[in-house]
Amino acid sequence: MPTSENDSPPVYREIADALRSAIDSGELSDGDRIPGENELMKRHGVARATARQALSVLINEGIAVAVRGSGVYVRAFRPLVRHGRARLSRDLWGAGRSIWEADAVERPFAADSVTVAELLAPAHVARALGLGSDEQVVARRRRYRLDGRPMQLATSYLPAALVSGTPVTREDTGPGGIYARLAELGHAPAHFTEEIRVRMPSPDERAQLALAPGTPVLHIMRVALTAGHRAVELNEMTLDGSAYVLRYDFEA
Amino acid sequence: MPTSENDSPPVYREIADALRSAIDSGELSDGDRIPGENELMKRHGVARATARQALSVLINEGIAVAVRGSGVYVRAFRPLVRHGRARLSRDLWGAGRSIWEADAVERPFAADSVTVAELLAPAHVARALGLGSDEQVVARRRRYRLDGRPMQLATSYLPAALVSGTPVTREDTGPGGIYARLAELGHAPAHFTEEIRVRMPSPDERAQLALAPGTPVLHIMRVALTAGHRAVELNEMTLDGSAYVLRYDFEA
Repeated sequence: MPTSENDSPPVYREIADALRSAIDSGELSDGDRIPGENELMKRHGVARATARQALSVLINEGIAVAVRGSGVYVRAFRPLVRHGRARLSRDLWGAGRSIWEADAVERPFAADSVTVAELLAPAHVARALGLGSDEQVVARRRRYRLDGRPMQLATSYLPAALVSGTPVTREDTGPGGIYARLAELGHAPAHFTEEIRVRMPSPDERAQLALAPGTPVLHIMRVALTAGHRAVELNEMTLDGSAYVLRYDFEA
Repeated sequence: MPTSENDSPPVYREIADALRSAIDSGELSDGDRIPGENELMKRHGVARATARQALSVLINEGIAVAVRGSGVYVRAFRPLVRHGRARLSRDLWGAGRSIWEADAVERPFAADSVTVAELLAPAHVARALGLGSDEQVVARRRRYRLDGRPMQLATSYLPAALVSGTPVTREDTGPGGIYARLAELGHAPAHFTEEIRVRMPSPDERAQLALAPGTPVLHIMRVALTAGHRAVELNEMTLDGSAYVLRYDFEA
């Protein structure tokens, strides 16, 4: 049991602190069951509402997950490693493989709910692609799942002037995906810029990615540029923050 | 007012949705004041508790911030851009400048509460640096502030066998910082690997970084390697997720 500070914290917080310490020390580890309401009530001599409040602190911090009808567990962090450079190397998509195979390693990655539409470039897209405010883009939206679990939402925007009527606008873009098709059109990506920020999900993102409480999202904006530094794609991605480690390698 | 769905959501959630839409559409933008409890009570004909609950939804999502005695505001996102490659280029630290100057641009960055200690390598540090479990490391802990606001916690671990008794162990490591000192010792960093994950802060991190509710942290593990691929530093960083955009550039 933690001792109280000068102005002692509420009891539910002391219980949460004790459980958090047990997790930090490894006494409770990834996927372990956390003592339930009944056990906390008995162990600490508190009311059910207090026990529940203690558990909800850990759930809202994202270090515990409630499984309906089963209990509360230490959240396991067994992420995918998304490797900036290796993922996008031309060797990969040049040979007709999906970028995603590099992330998913041996596990099957699936895109669902693919939609393709032509629309007026939204302001931030026009800015990223260097387009005028009256120019059209092709928007490809999809969600990626791994082992049936939704992991990522992604929307690629490409200048309609470059890709309208080409295989880039098909639902299935064929081997090597849109980068291989861009290369065939004479616009092979040569440089990439990724900007990453983090935030809590919107209710819509929370639903689409089936996120547990206390789960932030990674928001990545990636711009693909040709050797001549023409921006040919903006890919706006929202990743389940509990499912990914992003890795980047670079030289001094 | 939003219309109710088939099974209608609670009223506080409808009010939160309406305010979120106003923010998404730009009707309310960065730093704007959000209608307060009194105004929401009048506008929607609800009790104070309901109005307060609606505002707390937005605060917990991190899109609004409560300012004590003033009201609730749309959270402004005016981040620092932390640029992977440019920040660490040898041109910068080779010339005796701090890495941080690249982030802070014209603004003053200050490190406070610097502590230096020699300790047995923690397991994850030993793994990252390729050390045995009985080897010592020098740990440099500090917090960075910008305009007085805490932005980042960082702890650098270096093999004691390399740096013990050298200027790397001083509180002030001099012009160019530890990378310039490592270069003088014949261990100039040549390659960097960064692994980024995101999570909610621990209570201690929340206090040290003075984080508002609904603010996740970026957790970066950076390993510096020599030209001969010897790991000479692990820097473990915790960044205020509302204060940073991370940028990486790379080639296809």
